[in-house]
Amino acid sequence: MTPVSDVLSRTSTTDTAKVLLPLDDFTWNGWSAMETQWQVERLLSRYAMCIDEDVLESWPEFFTLNACRYEIITRENVERGMPLALMFCTSRGMLVDRIVSLREANIYPQRWYRHIISNVLIQSADAECLQVQSNYVVLQTRRTGQTDIFSAGKYVDRVVLSNGELKFSEKRVVVDTHRVDTLLVAPI
Amino acid sequence: MTPVSDVLSRTSTTDTAKVLLPLDDFTWNGWSAMETQWQVERLLSRYAMCIDEDVLESWPEFFTLNACRYEIITRENVERGMPLALMFCTSRGMLVDRIVSLREANIYPQRWYRHIISNVLIQSADAECLQVQSNYVVLQTRRTGQTDIFSAGKYVDRVVLSNGELKFSEKRVVVDTHRVDTLLVAPI
Amino acid sequence: MTPVSDVLSRTSTTDTAKVLLPLDDFTWNGWSAMETQWQVERLLSRYAMCIDEDVLESWPEFFTLNACRYEIITRENVERGMPLALMFCTSRGMLVDRIVSLREANIYPQRWYRHIISNVLIQSADAECLQVQSNYVVLQTRRTGQTDIFSAGKYVDRVVLSNGELKFSEKRVVVDTHRVDTLLVAPI
Repeated sequence: MTPVSDVLSRTSTTDTAKVLLPLDDFTWNGWSAMETQWQVERLLSRYAMCIDEDVLESWPEFFTLNACRYEIITRENVERGMPLALMFCTSRGMLVDRIVSLREANIYPQRWYRHIISNVLIQSADAECLQVQSNYVVLQTRRTGQTDIFSAGKYVDRVVLSNGELKFSEKRVVVDTHRVDTLLVAPI
Repeated sequence: MTPVSDVLSRTSTTDTAKVLLPLDDFTWNGWSAMETQWQVERLLSRYAMCIDEDVLESWPEFFTLNACRYEIITRENVERGMPLALMFCTSRGMLVDRIVSLREANIYPQRWYRHIISNVLIQSADAECLQVQSNYVVLQTRRTGQTDIFSAGKYVDRVVLSNGELKFSEKRVVVDTHRVDTLLVAPI
Repeated sequence: MTPVSDVLSRTSTTDTAKVLLPLDDFTWNGWSAMETQWQVERLLSRYAMCIDEDVLESWPEFFTLNACRYEIITRENVERGMPLALMFCTSRGMLVDRIVSLREANIYPQRWYRHIISNVLIQSADAECLQVQSNYVVLQTRRTGQTDIFSAGKYVDRVVLSNGELKFSEKRVVVDTHRVDTLLVAPI
């Protein structure tokens, strides 16, 4: 089907070098394409639950131990080719530091987050790594009880199998929403 | 994977006594874990459709006949350990009554609901029952044609197989949003 | 299970003539019901990605070549039995024209869209065609960086297998939201 390959080759928001056609049939580490999809969706659901339940101390464990990369970057910057990220971590230690300082510097009014992750699309699979894209919206509820949109965008993830568990070796959060008051408070 | 078990044991919004680790591999009533996931997602989709299409007379049939429990409770009350619920039904008869009085006392301006249910996570499975958590947002559209967020939160469900059909033996709606004008009008 | 059949037979927003019971077990073109679900969800995810990445030139390719139908209609009009649609195309050429004129007449301020599609429910399957319903919300982010709800509603789709690829032979977008400033700018 040509549309998606065209989409991927023409769009400026996708790193075309790494993106292949969505795959309908493959096996990966002994899983069928459908099983792989299910496992990846479970990973994303647990990731969402970790943040939404505010147990951020466990958040770094969703990433690979040795080398990992977590980035929040605006779609505007991606499309302009500007690498400046809102958050950029290249090791699990940096992720841990992030949470520690977030807990210590908790000067912001408390709010709850709720992730809705949808349209999970496995884009490529090689022996080591899956590239997965998904859409998300994170809703926030303030102390007042009112819920609004905190952030919408997409996840561009690289997922690996590490000691029998799926982990993110790379998670790139491309945010559509760039007018946020407290973007740095919590991971997305 | 430790993060989720940690999440579940540390969080105050989860009933830790009942929650086990998300399961990657099990069989349940002859279904694989993946098939069970699919069936549960179908149940949730039909549930959403029932409310969104405003055919609430059928809503009680999604629950077990003998004993069931439906509860809407704010996340605030859950975290404070206060059991006070916004809606609390412990039999199918109570669910039916709810809909009857809702239809009779229809003094509110009509609105449409639209459920987005995501990140469905089967948390435990024993011979009788699945415990399932999912995130949701319900959008409402008023007569004016404008759509906004009605409620965001999570479902904590207990699902059983009854005469070959999946039913909720328990559905606990934990709402993040507690500033709603008409929370009691329709089930979530 | 009676609720859904009741829902479908009573609701005025569904074309009851064509809608059958949600099916738990069938095969379709050699796929199990679960595989079919997965393939349909992939189609919807790619469709969402095409619009969200703003590669609308590929959008017509998601539809069948010979005869297809794409319609955006308000829920209000569906419930009143008024056939007037906000957008109505009955061939792929009309879809292409739509995109061409949209690109040429780009007098609107640029915005980004983000689709969240959920609760995908296969409602019937015959030898040629699947009928599939799903809920969606499309978020828009303006130049200012603020994200809000552009449109919420449901997709009522007819999906066929054409040369080994899933395509929409019909896509009916029933929008709850009818107060939109720029509904005609982009497909939903």
